[in-house]
Amino acid sequence: MSGNGSTVTIHMAASLDGFIARRDGGVDWMETSDVFDDGESLGADEVAAFLRAIDCYVMGSRTYETALAFEARGLGWAYGDKPVFVLTTRALSKTRDTVEFVSGDMDLLFQQRLRPTFRNIWVAGGGVVAGEVLRRHLADEVRYSILPVLIGDGLRFFEGVSCDVRLHLLEAKAYRSGIVALRHSVRRD
Amino acid sequence: MSGNGSTVTIHMAASLDGFIARRDGGVDWMETSDVFDDGESLGADEVAAFLRAIDCYVMGSRTYETALAFEARGLGWAYGDKPVFVLTTRALSKTRDTVEFVSGDMDLLFQQRLRPTFRNIWVAGGGVVAGEVLRRHLADEVRYSILPVLIGDGLRFFEGVSCDVRLHLLEAKAYRSGIVALRHSVRRD
Repeated sequence: MSGNGSTVTIHMAASLDGFIARRDGGVDWMETSDVFDDGESLGADEVAAFLRAIDCYVMGSRTYETALAFEARGLGWAYGDKPVFVLTTRALSKTRDTVEFVSGDMDLLFQQRLRPTFRNIWVAGGGVVAGEVLRRHLADEVRYSILPVLIGDGLRFFEGVSCDVRLHLLEAKAYRSGIVALRHSVRRD
Repeated sequence: MSGNGSTVTIHMAASLDGFIARRDGGVDWMETSDVFDDGESLGADEVAAFLRAIDCYVMGSRTYETALAFEARGLGWAYGDKPVFVLTTRALSKTRDTVEFVSGDMDLLFQQRLRPTFRNIWVAGGGVVAGEVLRRHLADEVRYSILPVLIGDGLRFFEGVSCDVRLHLLEAKAYRSGIVALRHSVRRD
Protein backbone atom coordinates (compact mmCIF):
# COMPACT_ATOMS: atom_id res chain seq x y z
CA MET A 1 0.00 0.00 0.00
CA SER A 2 1.41 3.37 -0.93
CA GLY A 3 1.35 6.48 1.25
CA ASN A 4 -2.06 7.64 0.08
CA GLY A 5 -3.75 4.34 0.89
CA SER A 6 -4.11 3.04 -2.67
CA THR A 7 -3.50 -0.62 -3.45
CA VAL A 8 -2.35 -2.14 -6.74
CA THR A 9 -3.48 -5.75 -7.07
CA ILE A 10 -2.56 -8.13 -9.86
CA HIS A 11 -5.32 -10.65 -10.40
CA MET A 12 -5.45 -13.52 -12.81
CA ALA A 13 -6.76 -17.04 -13.11
CA ALA A 14 -4.45 -19.78 -14.34
CA SER A 15 -4.24 -23.50 -14.87
CA LEU A 16 -2.32 -25.51 -12.26
CA ASP A 17 0.66 -25.43 -14.62
CA GLY A 18 0.57 -21.63 -14.69
CA PHE A 19 -1.01 -20.68 -18.00
CA ILE A 20 -3.61 -17.94 -18.36
CA ALA A 21 -4.59 -18.81 -21.94
CA ARG A 22 -3.68 -21.15 -24.75
CA ARG A 23 -1.13 -19.87 -27.29
CA ASP A 24 -4.01 -18.68 -29.50
CA GLY A 25 -5.58 -16.85 -26.54
CA GLY A 26 -8.23 -19.53 -25.96
CA VAL A 27 -9.75 -19.89 -22.50
CA ASP A 28 -12.18 -22.74 -23.20
CA TRP A 29 -10.36 -24.88 -20.57
CA MET A 30 -11.62 -22.55 -17.83
CA GLU A 31 -14.93 -24.46 -17.81
CA THR A 32 -13.70 -27.27 -15.58
CA SER A 33 -16.93 -28.73 -14.14
CA ASP A 34 -15.09 -29.74 -10.96
CA VAL A 35 -16.94 -29.86 -7.63
CA PHE A 36 -15.02 -29.60 -4.36
CA ASP A 37 -17.53 -30.48 -1.65
CA ASP A 38 -15.59 -28.79 1.16
CA GLY A 39 -15.23 -25.57 -0.82
CA GLU A 40 -16.88 -22.24 -0.18
CA SER A 41 -19.58 -20.86 -2.45
CA LEU A 42 -19.88 -17.22 -3.40
CA GLY A 43 -23.36 -15.79 -3.67
CA ALA A 44 -24.27 -13.23 -6.33
CA ASP A 45 -24.36 -10.52 -3.62
CA GLU A 46 -20.82 -11.31 -2.51
CA VAL A 47 -19.52 -11.26 -6.07
CA ALA A 48 -21.26 -7.93 -6.66
CA ALA A 49 -19.80 -6.43 -3.46
CA PHE A 50 -16.35 -7.71 -4.43
CA LEU A 51 -16.54 -6.11 -7.88
CA ARG A 52 -17.99 -2.88 -6.46
CA ALA A 53 -14.87 -2.45 -4.32
CA ILE A 54 -12.63 -2.29 -7.39
CA ASP A 55 -12.09 1.32 -8.52
CA CYS A 56 -10.35 0.86 -11.87
CA TYR A 57 -8.74 -1.75 -14.09
CA VAL A 58 -5.41 -1.79 -15.92
CA MET A 59 -4.76 -4.32 -18.68
CA GLY A 60 -2.70 -5.08 -21.74
CA SER A 61 -4.04 -4.85 -25.26
CA ARG A 62 -4.51 -8.60 -25.74
CA THR A 63 -6.51 -8.89 -22.53
CA TYR A 64 -8.66 -6.01 -23.77
CA GLU A 65 -9.17 -7.75 -27.11
CA THR A 66 -10.13 -10.96 -25.29
CA ALA A 67 -12.69 -8.95 -23.28
CA LEU A 68 -14.08 -7.51 -26.52
CA ALA A 69 -14.31 -10.99 -28.04
CA PHE A 70 -16.23 -12.21 -24.98
CA GLU A 71 -18.61 -9.30 -25.33
CA ALA A 72 -19.08 -9.98 -29.04
CA ARG A 73 -20.09 -13.55 -28.16
CA GLY A 74 -22.81 -12.19 -25.90
CA LEU A 75 -20.96 -12.94 -22.65
CA GLY A 76 -21.03 -9.35 -21.45
CA TRP A 77 -18.44 -6.78 -20.43
CA ALA A 78 -16.67 -7.91 -17.27
CA TYR A 79 -15.64 -4.47 -15.98
CA GLY A 80 -19.00 -2.75 -15.50
CA ASP A 81 -18.85 1.04 -15.58
CA LYS A 82 -15.40 1.21 -13.97
CA PRO A 83 -12.55 3.03 -15.74
CA VAL A 84 -10.39 0.65 -17.78
CA PHE A 85 -6.86 1.70 -18.73
CA VAL A 86 -5.50 -0.29 -21.67
CA LEU A 87 -1.71 -0.23 -22.04
CA THR A 88 -1.03 -0.15 -25.74
CA THR A 89 0.81 1.59 -28.55
CA ARG A 90 -1.54 0.07 -31.11
CA ALA A 91 -4.72 1.65 -32.47
CA LEU A 92 -7.53 -0.33 -30.88
CA SER A 93 -11.27 -0.08 -31.14
CA LYS A 94 -12.71 2.11 -28.34
CA THR A 95 -16.09 0.64 -27.51
CA ARG A 96 -17.12 2.75 -24.52
CA ASP A 97 -16.32 5.99 -22.71
CA THR A 98 -14.87 4.20 -19.69
CA VAL A 99 -12.00 2.80 -21.79
CA GLU A 100 -8.84 4.86 -22.11
CA PHE A 101 -5.72 3.88 -24.08
CA VAL A 102 -2.44 4.75 -22.40
CA SER A 103 1.20 4.33 -23.37
CA GLY A 104 4.52 5.57 -22.12
CA ASP A 105 6.12 5.33 -18.69
CA MET A 106 4.40 2.77 -16.48
CA ASP A 107 5.87 4.20 -13.26
CA LEU A 108 4.39 7.62 -14.02
CA LEU A 109 1.04 6.07 -14.89
CA PHE A 110 0.74 4.29 -11.56
CA GLN A 111 2.40 6.80 -9.26
CA GLN A 112 1.18 10.10 -10.70
CA ARG A 113 -2.06 9.24 -12.40
CA LEU A 114 -3.70 6.14 -10.90
CA ARG A 115 -2.63 6.04 -7.24
CA PRO A 116 -3.68 9.64 -6.44
CA THR A 117 -7.11 9.07 -8.02
CA PHE A 118 -8.10 5.47 -7.30
CA ARG A 119 -7.97 3.46 -4.11
CA ASN A 120 -8.35 -0.11 -5.34
CA ILE A 121 -6.42 -0.50 -8.61
CA TRP A 122 -6.81 -3.86 -10.30
CA VAL A 123 -4.28 -5.18 -12.85
CA ALA A 124 -6.23 -7.70 -14.90
CA GLY A 125 -3.38 -9.07 -17.06
CA GLY A 126 -1.96 -10.35 -19.22
CA GLY A 127 1.33 -11.96 -18.36
CA VAL A 128 3.56 -9.26 -19.84
CA VAL A 129 1.79 -6.44 -18.00
CA ALA A 130 1.73 -8.44 -14.74
CA GLY A 131 5.45 -9.21 -15.06
CA GLU A 132 6.30 -5.59 -15.82
CA VAL A 133 4.26 -4.26 -12.90
CA LEU A 134 6.05 -6.69 -10.58
CA ARG A 135 9.50 -5.99 -12.00
CA ARG A 136 8.99 -2.27 -11.42
CA HIS A 137 7.82 -2.86 -7.83
CA LEU A 138 4.45 -1.25 -8.58
CA ALA A 139 2.26 -4.02 -7.16
CA ASP A 140 1.15 -4.43 -3.55
CA GLU A 141 -0.75 -7.67 -3.90
CA VAL A 142 -0.98 -10.71 -6.16
CA ARG A 143 -4.21 -12.68 -6.38
CA TYR A 144 -3.74 -15.95 -8.15
CA SER A 145 -6.70 -18.23 -8.79
CA ILE A 146 -5.78 -21.79 -9.69
CA LEU A 147 -8.13 -23.89 -11.79
CA PRO A 148 -8.18 -27.70 -11.50
CA VAL A 149 -6.67 -28.46 -14.90
CA LEU A 150 -3.30 -28.72 -16.67
CA ILE A 151 -3.13 -27.43 -20.24
CA GLY A 152 0.53 -28.15 -21.00
CA ASP A 153 1.35 -25.00 -22.93
CA GLY A 154 0.16 -21.44 -23.40
CA LEU A 155 0.64 -17.87 -22.25
CA ARG A 156 2.25 -17.63 -18.84
CA PHE A 157 0.86 -15.67 -15.90
CA PHE A 158 4.08 -13.74 -15.37
CA GLU A 159 6.43 -12.86 -18.19
CA GLY A 160 9.80 -11.21 -17.78
CA VAL A 161 9.81 -10.71 -14.01
CA SER A 162 13.61 -11.32 -14.24
CA CYS A 163 14.23 -11.09 -10.50
CA ASP A 164 13.02 -12.79 -7.33
CA VAL A 165 9.87 -11.27 -5.84
CA ARG A 166 9.33 -12.30 -2.24
CA LEU A 167 5.73 -12.71 -1.18
CA HIS A 168 3.78 -13.05 2.04
CA LEU A 169 0.78 -15.36 2.06
CA LEU A 170 -2.35 -13.49 3.16
CA GLU A 171 -5.08 -15.99 2.32
CA ALA A 172 -5.76 -19.33 0.65
CA LYS A 173 -9.36 -20.19 -0.07
CA ALA A 174 -10.79 -23.21 -1.85
CA TYR A 175 -14.12 -22.87 -3.65
CA ARG A 176 -16.81 -25.37 -4.51
CA SER A 177 -15.84 -24.93 -8.17
CA GLY A 178 -12.45 -26.51 -7.40
CA ILE A 179 -10.75 -23.16 -7.80
CA VAL A 180 -8.16 -22.22 -5.16
CA ALA A 181 -7.74 -18.48 -4.67
CA LEU A 182 -4.40 -17.39 -3.25
CA ARG A 183 -3.69 -13.89 -2.05
CA HIS A 184 -0.13 -12.68 -1.40
CA SER A 185 1.33 -9.31 -0.54
CA VAL A 186 4.59 -8.25 -2.16
CA ARG A 187 7.27 -8.04 0.52
CA ARG A 188 9.29 -4.84 0.72
CA ASP A 189 11.62 -6.01 3.53
CA MET B 1 -5.93 -45.78 -8.03
CA SER B 2 -5.35 -48.86 -10.11
CA GLY B 3 -7.04 -52.22 -9.64
CA ASN B 4 -4.56 -53.49 -7.09
CA GLY B 5 -4.90 -50.46 -4.83
CA SER B 6 -1.61 -48.78 -5.67
CA THR B 7 -1.44 -45.01 -6.08
CA VAL B 8 1.01 -43.02 -8.19
CA THR B 9 1.45 -39.49 -6.82
CA ILE B 10 3.46 -36.71 -8.42
CA HIS B 11 4.79 -34.38 -5.77
CA MET B 12 6.83 -31.25 -6.20
CA ALA B 13 7.30 -27.84 -4.67
CA ALA B 14 7.32 -24.80 -6.92
CA SER B 15 7.42 -21.02 -6.85
CA LEU B 16 4.10 -19.21 -7.40
CA ASP B 17 5.14 -18.76 -11.03
CA GLY B 18 5.57 -22.51 -11.44
CA PHE B 19 9.30 -23.17 -11.34
CA ILE B 20 10.86 -26.06 -9.42
CA ALA B 21 14.45 -24.82 -9.74
CA ARG B 22 16.49 -22.09 -11.35
CA ARG B 23 17.93 -22.83 -14.79
CA ASP B 24 21.18 -23.97 -13.11
CA GLY B 25 19.21 -26.28 -10.78
CA GLY B 26 19.47 -23.92 -7.81
CA VAL B 27 16.85 -24.14 -5.07
CA ASP B 28 18.19 -21.42 -2.75
CA TRP B 29 14.90 -19.48 -3.18
CA MET B 30 13.07 -22.24 -1.27
CA GLU B 31 14.14 -20.62 2.00
CA THR B 32 11.41 -18.01 2.04
CA SER B 33 11.19 -17.00 5.74
CA ASP B 34 7.49 -16.24 5.35
CA VAL B 35 5.14 -16.70 8.31
CA PHE B 36 1.41 -17.21 7.74
CA ASP B 37 -0.18 -16.88 11.17
CA ASP B 38 -3.37 -18.75 10.24
CA GLY B 39 -1.42 -21.65 8.78
CA GLU B 40 -1.10 -25.16 10.11
CA SER B 41 2.14 -26.44 11.57
CA LEU B 42 3.44 -29.94 11.05
CA GLY B 43 5.16 -31.62 13.96
CA ALA B 44 8.17 -33.90 13.49
CA ASP B 45 5.97 -36.92 14.25
CA GLU B 46 3.50 -35.99 11.53
CA VAL B 47 6.27 -35.49 8.98
CA ALA B 48 7.78 -38.85 9.95
CA ALA B 49 4.39 -40.60 9.61
CA PHE B 50 3.83 -38.95 6.25
CA LEU B 51 7.20 -40.10 4.92
CA ARG B 52 6.74 -43.58 6.39
CA ALA B 53 3.60 -44.03 4.27
CA ILE B 54 5.57 -43.62 1.04
CA ASP B 55 6.70 -47.00 -0.33
CA CYS B 56 9.06 -45.98 -3.13
CA TYR B 57 10.26 -42.98 -5.11
CA VAL B 58 10.66 -42.46 -8.85
CA MET B 59 12.72 -39.56 -10.17
CA GLY B 60 14.69 -38.24 -13.10
CA SER B 61 18.46 -38.14 -13.22
CA ARG B 62 18.78 -34.43 -12.49
CA THR B 63 16.56 -34.70 -9.43
CA TYR B 64 18.77 -37.58 -8.28
CA GLU B 65 21.88 -35.49 -8.82
CA THR B 66 20.31 -32.62 -6.88
CA ALA B 67 19.62 -35.05 -4.02
CA LEU B 68 23.26 -36.21 -4.13
CA ALA B 69 24.45 -32.59 -4.05
CA PHE B 70 22.27 -31.93 -0.99
CA GLU B 71 23.76 -34.96 0.71
CA ALA B 72 27.30 -33.85 -0.17
CA ARG B 73 26.58 -30.52 1.53
CA GLY B 74 25.66 -32.36 4.72
CA LEU B 75 21.91 -31.90 4.33
CA GLY B 76 21.14 -35.60 4.40
CA TRP B 77 19.41 -38.04 2.06
CA ALA B 78 15.74 -37.16 1.76
CA TYR B 79 14.43 -40.64 0.87
CA GLY B 80 15.43 -42.68 3.92
CA ASP B 81 15.76 -46.41 3.27
CA LYS B 82 12.95 -46.48 0.69
CA PRO B 83 13.65 -47.83 -2.82
CA VAL B 84 14.50 -45.04 -5.26
CA PHE B 85 14.09 -45.67 -9.00
CA VAL B 86 16.10 -43.23 -11.11
CA LEU B 87 14.99 -42.93 -14.73
CA THR B 88 18.15 -42.50 -16.75
CA THR B 89 20.16 -43.70 -19.70
CA ARG B 90 23.30 -42.07 -18.33
CA ALA B 91 25.91 -43.73 -16.10
CA LEU B 92 25.35 -42.20 -12.67
CA SER B 93 27.04 -42.73 -9.35
CA LYS B 94 25.20 -45.36 -7.27
CA THR B 95 25.63 -44.30 -3.67
CA ARG B 96 23.45 -46.84 -1.86
CA ASP B 97 21.74 -50.20 -2.35
CA THR B 98 18.27 -48.67 -2.32
CA VAL B 99 18.96 -46.80 -5.56
CA GLU B 100 18.21 -48.53 -8.84
CA PHE B 101 18.74 -47.06 -12.31
CA VAL B 102 16.02 -47.86 -14.81
CA SER B 103 15.48 -47.02 -18.46
CA GLY B 104 13.13 -48.11 -21.22
CA ASP B 105 9.35 -48.19 -21.37
CA MET B 106 7.76 -46.08 -18.64
CA ASP B 107 4.36 -47.78 -18.96
CA LEU B 108 5.91 -51.18 -18.31
CA LEU B 109 7.88 -49.81 -15.36
CA PHE B 110 4.78 -48.50 -13.61
CA GLN B 111 2.24 -51.13 -14.60
CA GLN B 112 4.30 -54.31 -14.43
CA ARG B 113 7.05 -53.51 -11.98
CA LEU B 114 6.04 -50.78 -9.53
CA ARG B 115 2.26 -51.04 -9.12
CA PRO B 116 2.22 -54.78 -8.30
CA THR B 117 4.95 -54.30 -5.66
CA PHE B 118 4.38 -50.92 -4.05
CA ARG B 119 1.23 -49.32 -2.71
CA ASN B 120 2.21 -45.67 -2.39
CA ILE B 121 4.44 -44.72 -5.34
CA TRP B 122 5.86 -41.21 -5.22
CA VAL B 123 7.11 -39.40 -8.32
CA ALA B 124 9.54 -36.81 -6.99
CA GLY B 125 10.31 -34.95 -10.24
CA GLY B 126 11.62 -33.30 -12.19
CA GLY B 127 9.44 -31.55 -14.71
CA VAL B 128 10.17 -33.85 -17.63
CA VAL B 129 9.39 -37.01 -15.67
CA ALA B 130 6.24 -35.44 -14.16
CA GLY B 131 5.06 -34.34 -17.60
CA GLU B 132 5.73 -37.75 -19.12
CA VAL B 133 3.94 -39.60 -16.31
CA LEU B 134 0.90 -37.34 -16.79
CA ARG B 135 0.96 -37.57 -20.56
CA ARG B 136 0.93 -41.36 -20.35
CA HIS B 137 -1.97 -41.32 -17.85
CA LEU B 138 0.14 -43.09 -15.24
CA ALA B 139 -0.54 -40.70 -12.34
CA ASP B 140 -3.47 -40.86 -9.93
CA GLU B 141 -2.70 -37.75 -7.91
CA VAL B 142 -0.78 -34.50 -8.17
CA ARG B 143 0.49 -32.78 -5.04
CA TYR B 144 1.66 -29.29 -5.74
CA SER B 145 3.21 -27.20 -2.97
CA ILE B 146 3.39 -23.50 -3.72
CA LEU B 147 6.04 -21.35 -2.07
CA PRO B 148 5.49 -17.63 -1.45
CA VAL B 149 7.97 -16.33 -4.01
CA LEU B 150 8.26 -15.59 -7.74
CA ILE B 151 11.59 -16.40 -9.39
CA GLY B 152 10.83 -15.29 -12.95
CA ASP B 153 12.56 -18.09 -14.82
CA GLY B 154 13.73 -21.66 -14.33
CA LEU B 155 12.79 -25.30 -14.78
CA ARG B 156 9.07 -25.82 -15.03
CA PHE B 157 7.07 -28.24 -12.88
CA PHE B 158 5.49 -29.94 -15.89
CA GLU B 159 7.23 -30.25 -19.22
CA GLY B 160 5.70 -31.67 -22.37
CA VAL B 161 2.28 -32.63 -21.04
CA SER B 162 0.96 -31.68 -24.53
CA CYS B 163 -2.70 -32.33 -23.73
CA ASP B 164 -5.27 -31.13 -21.22
CA VAL B 165 -5.30 -33.08 -17.96
CA ARG B 166 -8.49 -32.54 -16.00
CA LEU B 167 -8.11 -32.57 -12.24
CA HIS B 168 -10.34 -32.80 -9.20
CA LEU B 169 -9.41 -30.76 -6.14
CA LEU B 170 -9.05 -33.01 -3.09
CA GLU B 171 -7.43 -30.66 -0.59
CA ALA B 172 -5.92 -27.21 -0.17
CA LYS B 173 -3.94 -26.57 2.99
CA ALA B 174 -1.99 -23.48 4.00
CA TYR B 175 0.96 -23.88 6.35
CA ARG B 176 2.59 -21.53 8.81
CA SER B 177 5.61 -21.43 6.48
CA GLY B 178 3.46 -19.66 3.88
CA ILE B 179 3.45 -22.79 1.73
CA VAL B 180 0.10 -23.82 0.23
CA ALA B 181 -0.20 -27.54 -0.44
CA LEU B 182 -2.71 -28.54 -3.12
CA ARG B 183 -3.78 -32.09 -3.76
CA HIS B 184 -5.66 -33.06 -6.93
CA SER B 185 -6.70 -36.38 -8.36
CA VAL B 186 -6.40 -36.96 -12.11
CA ARG B 187 -9.87 -37.27 -13.59
CA ARG B 188 -10.59 -40.31 -15.76
CA ASP B 189 -14.16 -39.34 -16.66
